[in-house]
Amino acid sequence: MRRAVSEHRQQVLDLVRSAWQRRLAEGRGEEAVPLAGALHRVLARDLTAPVSLPPFANSQMDGYAVSSRATAAGTVFAVAPPVPAGRAAGPLPPGCAVPVMTGAMLPAGADAVVPVEQAVPDTFAPFEPGRTVVLPANVPAGQYVRAAGSDIAAGTCALPAGAMLKAGQLGLLAALGIAEVPVRPRLRVLLLSTGDEVVAPGGTLGPGQIYDANTTLLSAALAEAGCDVASARIVADAPEAFTRALAEDVERLAPDLVVSSGGISKGAFEVVKQALAGGGVDFASVAMQPGGPQAAGTVGETAFLGFPGNPVSSLVSFEMFLRPALSSVLAVPAPRTVLQVPLAAPVESPAGIHQVRRGRYDGAAVMPVGGPGSHLVHALARSNALIQLPPGAARREAGENVEVWLI
Amino acid sequence: MRRAVSEHRQQVLDLVRSAWQRRLAEGRGEEAVPLAGALHRVLARDLTAPVSLPPFANSQMDGYAVSSRATAAGTVFAVAPPVPAGRAAGPLPPGCAVPVMTGAMLPAGADAVVPVEQAVPDTFAPFEPGRTVVLPANVPAGQYVRAAGSDIAAGTCALPAGAMLKAGQLGLLAALGIAEVPVRPRLRVLLLSTGDEVVAPGGTLGPGQIYDANTTLLSAALAEAGCDVASARIVADAPEAFTRALAEDVERLAPDLVVSSGGISKGAFEVVKQALAGGGVDFASVAMQPGGPQAAGTVGETAFLGFPGNPVSSLVSFEMFLRPALSSVLAVPAPRTVLQVPLAAPVESPAGIHQVRRGRYDGAAVMPVGGPGSHLVHALARSNALIQLPPGAARREAGENVEVWLI
Repeated sequence: MRRAVSEHRQQVLDLVRSAWQRRLAEGRGEEAVPLAGALHRVLARDLTAPVSLPPFANSQMDGYAVSSRATAAGTVFAVAPPVPAGRAAGPLPPGCAVPVMTGAMLPAGADAVVPVEQAVPDTFAPFEPGRTVVLPANVPAGQYVRAAGSDIAAGTCALPAGAMLKAGQLGLLAALGIAEVPVRPRLRVLLLSTGDEVVAPGGTLGPGQIYDANTTLLSAALAEAGCDVASARIVADAPEAFTRALAEDVERLAPDLVVSSGGISKGAFEVVKQALAGGGVDFASVAMQPGGPQAAGTVGETAFLGFPGNPVSSLVSFEMFLRPALSSVLAVPAPRTVLQVPLAAPVESPAGIHQVRRGRYDGAAVMPVGGPGSHLVHALARSNALIQLPPGAARREAGENVEVWLI
Repeated sequence: MRRAVSEHRQQVLDLVRSAWQRRLAEGRGEEAVPLAGALHRVLARDLTAPVSLPPFANSQMDGYAVSSRATAAGTVFAVAPPVPAGRAAGPLPPGCAVPVMTGAMLPAGADAVVPVEQAVPDTFAPFEPGRTVVLPANVPAGQYVRAAGSDIAAGTCALPAGAMLKAGQLGLLAALGIAEVPVRPRLRVLLLSTGDEVVAPGGTLGPGQIYDANTTLLSAALAEAGCDVASARIVADAPEAFTRALAEDVERLAPDLVVSSGGISKGAFEVVKQALAGGGVDFASVAMQPGGPQAAGTVGETAFLGFPGNPVSSLVSFEMFLRPALSSVLAVPAPRTVLQVPLAAPVESPAGIHQVRRGRYDGAAVMPVGGPGSHLVHALARSNALIQLPPGAARREAGENVEVWLI
């Protein structure tokens, strides 16, 4: 009996959630990073504004700070010395207008700003005692004034736990004077690529050998998803070598999660299955193509996921199971953009199987790229979308809408 | 006369293109990085496949490799020793079927694979001389065989210049054995934040002072867009200090582009304008809000952009002018996702001005967040979208469609 995609997704979600809760329980759910290193990290807790923004009432325009009440009584004002940027403004002298540039602190007693364009003369002259300026009558109180705390008040929540820190959020924290941010640590992942036939890129291929794509592909996918790939290595197809490598790396690196590729299918030599069978890891057949064989469970206390060995299968496994779990538990990465778009060509898929095809979305429709084969890594590299074909129709026609995930 | 947004965008595009062409002319348009450090980089030139994928004909299933012709003559085959993964397969002995696991090399003379489930017996037994297996008759040639080069042939283009390297693309390069990739260098940007009133986050605010948000905000935006922020510092509001800091940093860091914030408006103290007026930098008033004041040109041979000093203005300037130019010239960052979505609340905007409002898009509609004020950095931090309100309507009603950029 094959396992449904949704059931396996739930198991992976539970594993990732447990791994994260273990971290929290051990008090390792937060780390402080400087603002400059916090891009794309996620806030570990609500952050309270230590100051108000703006911190003081200031001018929204280049102009003259005045008392609105005074403009009801007369329109000619003595021009006081300007408020220099970055200095405290003195009190507003009676009968005066004070030149202020955008952002400058308003003098105590001033409650409105008249833009210089509305004054006569309409340009600033260097300060000289005795100069006057004519301003409009009856300026409304508050005009062109940014009140202290009008953007955010000190003591209120600036950003909630789980907020992803991008340029705008980091700009706010800087504006609040916060130089170090409490963020969620990255999930630490140990990657094991299995196979006697795989050779690291840069090496020389013997007959029957292929280059290892999974280490590179899954390292990139995990890094892009905000994980810390603590170690990635190739392990030979010998169960005792796999068991030893796994134990050594778990001991040395204390990963939150181990991800292996290869060795979990139904062949005669399946290293991960042979090494871990009978322990805490389930070996399942999921009704999905590619990526049918899946392993999930725990090794000791560490969460373990086994993906199939074909590169396309391992990426599809990551996108279908692990990435959504990371988004859900850690709020990073952002979930994939999901669209309903028409097929540019018909596709067929086996009955009872959730097929995931690679495709190229051009803004209007999605064109399947390459066939269903899980070894088609060039076709994958030319794709920007996963086409989701849930069990049901054996054939979808061109023009029919399908669900597409942008990758 | 105000400058149109499109006109200023073109000037910024021309500046970025010139900066990049200067690099190319000087032979600095490419650098080699290891695969593990190439995530989100952009290929500098077409890459040719040094090997075919698959490199050799191999099995798509766990099963028996046979000669399709032999299955037309009889259905009982002697079981030969299996092909171990990562080894050369010997030639197919006459009258034999060879156990092969997925990915194993096909013996010379075998041209089809029968899945083990279709064989009798339907499981693999350890090798023993004299064992036989019954296979279906008339197996089609090529069945469950991945032909050498069927994904990509050696000597053909694997990825074109300008391709962004994400997990799938890096997986392909690894599969091809390419360990080092020629990528476009990151554009080197020097950032200068101006103002006597700004204090770096972590410092103590005096009266009239504010924290510098622009250094953090623009550094994050530039890094996210694939630029290398070579230096970022705060410069006082003194033209000679600005000129000196600029000359020193340009000499020391040889940036491709300088971006300043603040000091380009119409006030009485505008440090960037005062320092650079009369040289190769234009100071323009763009019909946009926020971000009306803009500076663009060259200082010596170096491209220069001056953004206004309010944090929201500087981010909007980046998103409207510099980011699209980087996407266009360097193929990184990916352009913003643009949607047409209904407004969740009415907005007003001044006539003749392209207003850019911040908003929160929830998958159905966009709700404006905060007002138009360029100091509202908390409102910016709660937004995930820029609402584009080109000149035309003074008021847009709730439900009316507007263009939204997801940020």
